[in-house]
Amino acid sequence: MTLRIGIDLGGSNLRGAAFDAGDVAAPAQWAQREMVGTDRRPEAIIERVAAMVDRLAADGTGPIDVGVGIAAMLRDRRGTVAVSPHLGWRDVAFGELLAARLGSRFRLGVYNDVNAITWGEHVAGAARGCRDVLAVYVGTGIGGGIIANGQLLEGSTNCAGEIGHVKVRWDDDAAPCACGGRGCVEAYVGGSYLEKRIAREITGGKRNGGARARLARENNAAVQLAGSIERVTPSHVDQAATTGDEWALGLWTDVATLLAIALGNALAILDSERLVLGGGLLSRTPMLFELVETALLVVTPHPILERFDVVAAELGDNAGLVGAAALAADGVARIE
Amino acid sequence: MTLRIGIDLGGSNLRGAAFDAGDVAAPAQWAQREMVGTDRRPEAIIERVAAMVDRLAADGTGPIDVGVGIAAMLRDRRGTVAVSPHLGWRDVAFGELLAARLGSRFRLGVYNDVNAITWGEHVAGAARGCRDVLAVYVGTGIGGGIIANGQLLEGSTNCAGEIGHVKVRWDDDAAPCACGGRGCVEAYVGGSYLEKRIAREITGGKRNGGARARLARENNAAVQLAGSIERVTPSHVDQAATTGDEWALGLWTDVATLLAIALGNALAILDSERLVLGGGLLSRTPMLFELVETALLVVTPHPILERFDVVAAELGDNAGLVGAAALAADGVARIE
Repeated sequence: MTLRIGIDLGGSNLRGAAFDAGDVAAPAQWAQREMVGTDRRPEAIIERVAAMVDRLAADGTGPIDVGVGIAAMLRDRRGTVAVSPHLGWRDVAFGELLAARLGSRFRLGVYNDVNAITWGEHVAGAARGCRDVLAVYVGTGIGGGIIANGQLLEGSTNCAGEIGHVKVRWDDDAAPCACGGRGCVEAYVGGSYLEKRIAREITGGKRNGGARARLARENNAAVQLAGSIERVTPSHVDQAATTGDEWALGLWTDVATLLAIALGNALAILDSERLVLGGGLLSRTPMLFELVETALLVVTPHPILERFDVVAAELGDNAGLVGAAALAADGVARIE
Repeated sequence: MTLRIGIDLGGSNLRGAAFDAGDVAAPAQWAQREMVGTDRRPEAIIERVAAMVDRLAADGTGPIDVGVGIAAMLRDRRGTVAVSPHLGWRDVAFGELLAARLGSRFRLGVYNDVNAITWGEHVAGAARGCRDVLAVYVGTGIGGGIIANGQLLEGSTNCAGEIGHVKVRWDDDAAPCACGGRGCVEAYVGGSYLEKRIAREITGGKRNGGARARLARENNAAVQLAGSIERVTPSHVDQAATTGDEWALGLWTDVATLLAIALGNALAILDSERLVLGGGLLSRTPMLFELVETALLVVTPHPILERFDVVAAELGDNAGLVGAAALAADGVARIE
């Protein structure tokens, strides 16, 4: 049978699936998952990706489209990795090396992982049938993908959709971000920053003073839900906010406002008909999700709101596999 | 000969030109300009636009593509005006009424005026040959147009590119904007707001206090350039900043930072290869233009800067005519 193959190369897992090439929404026929492991030299990873493609292609006939979504900032449409903090790569000709290893039977495209996920939701998930979509995933960091005029918006260096790095602060106290910049929304709303802020506020950093910290330790609803200060996660804060806890609601309102400003500003520019929200943090914090939705109504220009909705991502981990395979099948950024 | 026609319907002028349909960059063959005047009822304006099209089409043969750029927020791809403060319209089926009046010889498309201008710079001006472009015009207000993947980004309600209404403030003191929102970049950088701020700072509003106001009156470099307090324009401030005047430089740095934040955030999302800057204000304030360029280097994510430049708009008033005609010829948002 004719197949298309989707690969998701993340910081922890290498996953792949083959799909019936005749049906864009078909479930994965075969799926594979392995740990990325410790040997992250490009040549080692490329060999393992190629071996997975070969296994997935075993039952296929004819030329096979292969799409790879990679947790990296790309530099061009030939799969060159500018930087991947997850893989520890910088300036790696990943796409061309992988294409050479795979050989002419395979038609390869390499995509930013969030772009692949966004396209997956477009062809088979929460953004089916939409011509203009903004998809934003809030997990450890914040990533975004854009569909405009029914096409994936790639951008000139294949870096479109970097909504995590729009600035929401630009004064001298703006928080440093992992990207090297300061004041990025990711530095206030991304999961890893948020966990640090929660810990700091609960345990009472220097700025909170002893009395407030003691009070927090004793009465904090999130701490009570978690059982101990050390175990408080954003989920506990979300539950505490739902019960009306003042500290949790205040924190969540801060966070929701900053995220909504970044989202509303992107919508003013893109005029999307649908905002898809997903990611590890937002999928576990329904109250925060709701506060973001409410804040969006205030900060988004009104004409855009006339035909607009916010939905949760549907496909979870499969979105990237579905999307990468579909993009490759459409010939997007094919490496010839 | 075969023609295409471009029309620019603004708040003051109705302009039109016919172009040789065989050459996208051809100069206008015939051009017309008249005042919009006082009778702004939709039926009156539509009749005048149609009469201009008929005149411009007199020497044409065969079907003729007609593109109209209009100073309005559109609601759809059929030329429905949601609101046009300039024309005093709300909910006007402009496109369909004009198409009915023009008849089947003409193939009509209606576009936001800034989108038409952006497309004009793309086909024959400062963004020729670029696949991903952000064009921003700072005049009385701030408008933007986007080219993504080589296509005009229209958005789901045909309102994409509303960069004037991204928020740069969201605290309780955020400035009110003509759009009904608060904290929009237009409310800090748009020409009409800027002129008010200049007047307020020079004449000494309540917040400036008597002493500072007196000092400003006596020593302000912009006032000396203008001859009197009442005649100070942004151009005088720009000249004063160039000579190193502290107040003018401080104001311009404020303004440039806010505009650069809005632009840099848009670029983080769009990953454009070129930023085209134009409009009545920026074309007369070279020092401000330069400060914006410099600030952009700080606030834009670095990978995007690798392949990026900032250029001034080239076509001036003709851009909208060229662009509207070219969009219509490409069949974009054709009203069937």
